[in-house]
Amino acid sequence: MEKWRITHRLLRYSSNLLVDRSSNCSASPISAFRFASDYRENFVKRGLRNASSIQYRFFGSVATEIQRNTWFSTLNLDDISYFKEILGEKNVIQDPDVLLDANTDWMRKYKGSSKLMLQPRTTSEVSQILKYCNSRRLAVVPQGGKTGLVGGSVPVFDEVIINVGSMNNIIAFDKVSGILVCEAGCILENLISFLDDQGFIMPLDLGAKGSCQIGGNVSTNAGGLRLVRYGSLHGNVLGLEAVLANGDVIDMLGTLRKDNTGYDLKHLFIGSEGSLGIVTKVSILTPPKLSSVNLAFLACKDYFSCQKLLLEAKRKLGEVLSAFEFLDKQTMDLVLNHLEGARNPLPSSMHNFYVLIETTGSDESYDREKLEAFLLRSMEDGLVSDGVIAQDINQASSFWRIREGVAEALMKAGAVYKYDLSLPLEKMYDLVEEMRIRLGQTAKVIGYGHLGDGNLHLNISAPQYNDAIFAQIEPYVYEWTSNHRGSISAEHGLGLVKANKIYYSKSPETVHLMGSIKKLLDPNGILNPYKVLPHSLNSYH
Amino acid sequence: MEKWRITHRLLRYSSNLLVDRSSNCSASPISAFRFASDYRENFVKRGLRNASSIQYRFFGSVATEIQRNTWFSTLNLDDISYFKEILGEKNVIQDPDVLLDANTDWMRKYKGSSKLMLQPRTTSEVSQILKYCNSRRLAVVPQGGKTGLVGGSVPVFDEVIINVGSMNNIIAFDKVSGILVCEAGCILENLISFLDDQGFIMPLDLGAKGSCQIGGNVSTNAGGLRLVRYGSLHGNVLGLEAVLANGDVIDMLGTLRKDNTGYDLKHLFIGSEGSLGIVTKVSILTPPKLSSVNLAFLACKDYFSCQKLLLEAKRKLGEVLSAFEFLDKQTMDLVLNHLEGARNPLPSSMHNFYVLIETTGSDESYDREKLEAFLLRSMEDGLVSDGVIAQDINQASSFWRIREGVAEALMKAGAVYKYDLSLPLEKMYDLVEEMRIRLGQTAKVIGYGHLGDGNLHLNISAPQYNDAIFAQIEPYVYEWTSNHRGSISAEHGLGLVKANKIYYSKSPETVHLMGSIKKLLDPNGILNPYKVLPHSLNSYH
Repeated sequence: MEKWRITHRLLRYSSNLLVDRSSNCSASPISAFRFASDYRENFVKRGLRNASSIQYRFFGSVATEIQRNTWFSTLNLDDISYFKEILGEKNVIQDPDVLLDANTDWMRKYKGSSKLMLQPRTTSEVSQILKYCNSRRLAVVPQGGKTGLVGGSVPVFDEVIINVGSMNNIIAFDKVSGILVCEAGCILENLISFLDDQGFIMPLDLGAKGSCQIGGNVSTNAGGLRLVRYGSLHGNVLGLEAVLANGDVIDMLGTLRKDNTGYDLKHLFIGSEGSLGIVTKVSILTPPKLSSVNLAFLACKDYFSCQKLLLEAKRKLGEVLSAFEFLDKQTMDLVLNHLEGARNPLPSSMHNFYVLIETTGSDESYDREKLEAFLLRSMEDGLVSDGVIAQDINQASSFWRIREGVAEALMKAGAVYKYDLSLPLEKMYDLVEEMRIRLGQTAKVIGYGHLGDGNLHLNISAPQYNDAIFAQIEPYVYEWTSNHRGSISAEHGLGLVKANKIYYSKSPETVHLMGSIKKLLDPNGILNPYKVLPHSLNSYH
Repeated sequence: MEKWRITHRLLRYSSNLLVDRSSNCSASPISAFRFASDYRENFVKRGLRNASSIQYRFFGSVATEIQRNTWFSTLNLDDISYFKEILGEKNVIQDPDVLLDANTDWMRKYKGSSKLMLQPRTTSEVSQILKYCNSRRLAVVPQGGKTGLVGGSVPVFDEVIINVGSMNNIIAFDKVSGILVCEAGCILENLISFLDDQGFIMPLDLGAKGSCQIGGNVSTNAGGLRLVRYGSLHGNVLGLEAVLANGDVIDMLGTLRKDNTGYDLKHLFIGSEGSLGIVTKVSILTPPKLSSVNLAFLACKDYFSCQKLLLEAKRKLGEVLSAFEFLDKQTMDLVLNHLEGARNPLPSSMHNFYVLIETTGSDESYDREKLEAFLLRSMEDGLVSDGVIAQDINQASSFWRIREGVAEALMKAGAVYKYDLSLPLEKMYDLVEEMRIRLGQTAKVIGYGHLGDGNLHLNISAPQYNDAIFAQIEPYVYEWTSNHRGSISAEHGLGLVKANKIYYSKSPETVHLMGSIKKLLDPNGILNPYKVLPHSLNSYH
C-alpha cells in the first residue's frame, strides 16, 4: 500500500487543461511534419507521383492504384468566371502557394493537384457552387481543417476544393438547454473557448482541436477523448444543414433532443466524409462544464487486469469516469526513448501495462476521495500494481503527454505502419501479441488506445519501410480484425487509403446499399470522389 | 427551511423500482382501455368504418381520409399455401379472434382488417416472407408489442401482419463492454430482468416495457424516462440486422462503440417505423447498474423556476441526474380527482408546478447528501417552494404514480386531445397558457412531460369530443409548434395519424429526400404503407 502515491492537494484544472492538452500538436499541424521526414522520403519512394503528368497514383499499398475518372470535366475559364461572379474575386483562389498547401494533408502524406479553391461564406454560395459543378460534372472535395489521417480532405487529382473555413459564425447558444448552433467552419477549439465562457463544454475533444472544424468533425464522425463519457456525434448532433450535390439545401437544423417526425436523415451526413453532401451548419448538445477533474496514471501487470479495471471503473466510478486510456510497456519504452522530456510517472520499474483514468464531476473533494478509494480497492484486489494521481495541472499535462505523444514518438522512431481498430475488448490485445510473433525482431509492435471505447491503435515501428514487413502485416491485420467482427477504422474513417478495404468491416449487402444511397444523392459522383466507398462503387460512370 | 421534509433513511430501490413502476400500465395493455369507453364511442362516431366494405377510413380529423392503395394485391389461397410451406402450419394465423386482437392497437383506437398474421422464427423466414410479398405486391405491417400511440403497428386495411414476437432470443452479452445482442422480439422488461442479473440496465425505460419489444423500440426510436441521462437510441444502438422489402438481409450487427467504415446506415432503420425494413436483431450498449437511486418531489412557484432548476440540476447534480419531469397544477388537480388513491406528496397547499428529480449514482450516502444539499440551496435561492425526498420504495412509487398516472387520469376524465411536442424550453409553457386563453372554460388544458428533454405532453380534456373545441386546437397547436421550430412528435412517431402532418416539423426538401429513400429501399411500397410519410409520397404507384 505504501507504494500508492496520492497527493491530497485539490486538483482543479479542467478548463486550463483543455488548452494545455491541445498544444502538443494542434497549434501548427503542418509543423508536426518536421518529425516525419524519413516517413515522407520513404513514402515518395513507394510511388507518389505527380497527377498532372500521369493521372494515376499509388498510395503505399501495391493493391491501391487509382486513375482519374474521365467522366469528370476539367476546369475552364468560363468556370472560373462563373465562380468569381458568385463568390467575388478574392474567394476564388488560384495562387499556387495557397493551392500547394490546400492540396496537401497535414501529415504531407496525401497530395492532390487541384488548380482551384473556392471559399464560400454562406450556404447559398455552397449551393450555387455545387449546382454548377454538378451540371458541369466538376468533381469537388469539401475541406475543413484538413487534419484527417486517411487522405479524405485533400484532392486526389484536380477536384475543386470547397473550403468552408470562412463559414465560422456561432449562430445561437441556449444556456438552458446547452444547445449550440454554428456554421461548419468553426474551429473546434474556438467553440470550446466560447462554451467555456458560458459554463459548458463540447462533447468531443481531439488533439487536433486547434485546427479541425466542426463540419469536418461531424462529416467524419470524429471520436476522441470524451467518447467514453458523452458518446458519439450520432448521439450529440441534434441537427444539421447540408447541401446536396445538385445544390439542394437540406435543412435538418433542429435544436431538439427528441424529434420523431420521419426518417432521421442527418445521420447520413454524420461520418460519410463529405461524399453525400456538404455539411454547412450544425446544432449540437453540449454538456455543462463540471468543476472537478482528476487524473490517475496507473500500472497493471497484465492486459486482463486492465480489462477488469475498466469494468470496475465503469461500475464504481460510473457517472464521473471521463477517460480510460491504455498503453503497453513497448509503447512506454518508445515514448521514453523518442519523446523529448518524457518521463515515466512511475519510475521505479517498468510495468507491462499503463492506464490513464480521468474523472470529471461536480464535487471536488468528493470526486477525489471517490477516485482514491477506488484505486486503493483496485490495488488491494491486485488489479493495479502502482499508481499516482496528478496533483496539479503540470503533472496532469505530463501524464497526458505520455499518451498523446505516442504518435510523435513513433514518427521520430522511423517508419511506422498505423492501424486504428475497434475490437472486442477481451480479444484486442491478442492481435498485438500475434503481430509480435509474426514479426519477430524485424519490427517493434506497440499497442495503445482508447480502452474505454474498445479502440486499439496498433502501430508497427521499423527503421525503414520494407515490403517484407508490410507483407507480414497486411492483409493479416485486416483479416484478423474482420474475423473478430472488428472495425478496420474505429475513428479515422476510410478516406482514400482504406476505401477499398471496406469489405473487411461491412457485409457486401451493406456496402451495396451504401452504393445505392451514394448514387441516389450524388448521381454524377462529384462529391469527394475516390473515397469512402470501394472503387467499383465510386466510379459508376 | 423548516418546510423541507427530508428523511435521512437511506433510499435504495433501483431494481425493485423498475418492476414497480411498470405495473401501472404494462401488465395488460388492453385492459387500460376500460377507462376509455367514452373515447372509443366518440371515435367511432367520428368516422371509423369497416375497411372490408368501404375501403377508406377517417381518423379523428376531417382532413385525414385514406383509401386502400389498389397497387397492392389481395391475398389468395396460393399465398397462404406458400407461407405454410416456409413457416409451418401453426405460424400462419388465420384465426379470427387472434386476428381481431392483432388488428387492434392497445388503445383500441386504430383497427385494421388483416386476414393473415405470420410468425417467423428466424431472419431467414422474414427474408423469405418479404421477398415473396414484394414479388406479389402484398403490403405488410411489421408488428412487435403493439404499444405504439400513433397507429403505426396495426394494419390500416388488409396488410399481412408480420409478428416478430417469436424471435425473442438473447444472442450474446459481453459483461466487459456491456454490449447486448438480441432478437427483435425480446420484450423490453425481459431484457431489463436479464441485465439486472448481470449487473447492468437498459439505457431506455418505458411505461409499456411489459409488452413492448426491442425491435419496435428501435424502429420507433422510443424515448422514455432515461433519455435525459443516457441519450437516444441513435447513440445507444451499436448495430442491427434488418430485412429489406426485397428480402435482402442487411447485416449491420456490429458490437463496437466506434466504427467509421462507410455510411452508418443502421440509423435509417432507427425511427423509420418499419417503413424501410424489418429490424430482426439489435446490438445495444447497456450501462452498468448503479447502486443508489434517490427521488425528490418538489414544488415550484412558476415555470421559470422549473427551467432554472433544470439548469442548476444539470450543473450541480450533473453526472447523477437521471430524470427531470414536471407537471402543472392543473395536471395535479386532474390526477387527484380521477386517479384512485393518488395523493399530493406536498399536501399543505396547491402549488403552480411540480417537479420530480431522480438521481442514480454509485454511492448511496454521498448521492443522497448531494441531492439534499442541492435542494436546500435551491430553496434558499427561491427556485423550490417545498419538497420531499422519498424515503423508501413505496414512497418513491407513489411519487412516480402521480407522474405516470396522468394518461390514465385523462382517460377517466372524458375526451382527451393528446399532443406530444418538443419545444424550446423557454417557450414550452407559453403554448399551454395560450391554449387556456383560446379554449376558455370549454376544456381543461394540462401540461406535463419530460422537461429534461424539452418534451411537453400537452393534453386537452373535455367532457366529450366536440368539433368546435377541435377547431380551436388544430391546426393551431401544430402551427405554433412549427413556428417555434419544435417537433410535432417528440417520441411517439408519426405512424398513421400524423403522417400528413410531417411538414409542420420537416422542410419540404427533407421530406422529399425521405420519399426518395423510401422509393429506393422499398420500390413497391409494401412496408407499413399509409404511415410515416405523407400520403402523396406513400402512394407512389
